[in-house]
Amino acid sequence: MGFSASIEKLIEEFEKLPSIGHKTAVRLAFHMLNSSIEDCEQFAKTIVETKKNLKYCSICNNITDSDPCSICANAKRNQEVICVVEDVRDIVQIEKTHEYNGVYHVLNGVISPMNGVGPNDIKLKELMTRIGSGEVKELILATNPNVEGEATAMYISKLVKPFDIKTTRIAHGIPIGGDLEYVDEVTLAKALENRTTL
Amino acid sequence: MGFSASIEKLIEEFEKLPSIGHKTAVRLAFHMLNSSIEDCEQFAKTIVETKKNLKYCSICNNITDSDPCSICANAKRNQEVICVVEDVRDIVQIEKTHEYNGVYHVLNGVISPMNGVGPNDIKLKELMTRIGSGEVKELILATNPNVEGEATAMYISKLVKPFDIKTTRIAHGIPIGGDLEYVDEVTLAKALENRTTL
Repeated sequence: MGFSASIEKLIEEFEKLPSIGHKTAVRLAFHMLNSSIEDCEQFAKTIVETKKNLKYCSICNNITDSDPCSICANAKRNQEVICVVEDVRDIVQIEKTHEYNGVYHVLNGVISPMNGVGPNDIKLKELMTRIGSGEVKELILATNPNVEGEATAMYISKLVKPFDIKTTRIAHGIPIGGDLEYVDEVTLAKALENRTTL
Repeated sequence: MGFSASIEKLIEEFEKLPSIGHKTAVRLAFHMLNSSIEDCEQFAKTIVETKKNLKYCSICNNITDSDPCSICANAKRNQEVICVVEDVRDIVQIEKTHEYNGVYHVLNGVISPMNGVGPNDIKLKELMTRIGSGEVKELILATNPNVEGEATAMYISKLVKPFDIKTTRIAHGIPIGGDLEYVDEVTLAKALENRTTL
């Protein structure tokens, strides 16, 4: 005997979430069942409403409450530099550094032939339209440093060659606080190759 | 800049769940936002409906779809033996062993003066009513082997002294597949004390 059918269904719903295994799903399901009905309804409502009210910035494709998003609408930010990222979450990560004052472009994915994602399936056309407007001076390619991210960065850099735009890629190297002993050889090779003069 | 206000709210809702930290909450929130609206609604509906339709067995306090629960209603099970557990989940764990053929009683907690939980806050009165009916021959105390669980087991065993009932406690010892080297000394002392003749 397992749990009753309705609880099994609730557990199954939690199991669909990423990084949630069976044991955690059981714990989460029982946490919900032990919460008040108001809390359950609040949780359920927030999920559906947030999804329903989801809006994207018509310029950079960032998730936003108002269009254009607060970054694109900010006159103090340098609209001549565009940082190209894969995902909305990457914007938040970069904003946390407080080192970047340009704007963004969210690709919503990377080119990945293995997963059937081609150049037309990500927001590349929109990026080219922005570049075509002639305002852009620099393009920072901040896709992830894996096979798909590198390939997408290469693809974009070739695509913008005809325009007179400085195209850069975020640096690869040893993370701050890291340890040479534990760094993989590819990263270490990159760190040596891209060494800077002191 | 963080996420937009509505997304922060969704992340906060996920952070309320047990064992979900900020990073996992962000991942879960974005998983929901990337799912279809149908999936979001299905997830939200299951939570609220399961909570709303939650029913407890009037005999053993188990969560159930029908009252009495499938275990209490099963004529093949020995109604003379009651296994006392803290939580509904413990029933599922014990059922998995396929070694127990009696019925259960869910206390819905343990006596814990530190947390302000007294004997009247758990389903003890209901247990005493069942014992008072005279049908019960054995009471297996399967509360958890921690301070509160042990104290609750001791309390119940004293409470049922006046009745002619065999009261037993689940065994403490070294887990199967465990290693003497890594077992704590209290468990090892218990294992020595409760050694069995071969």
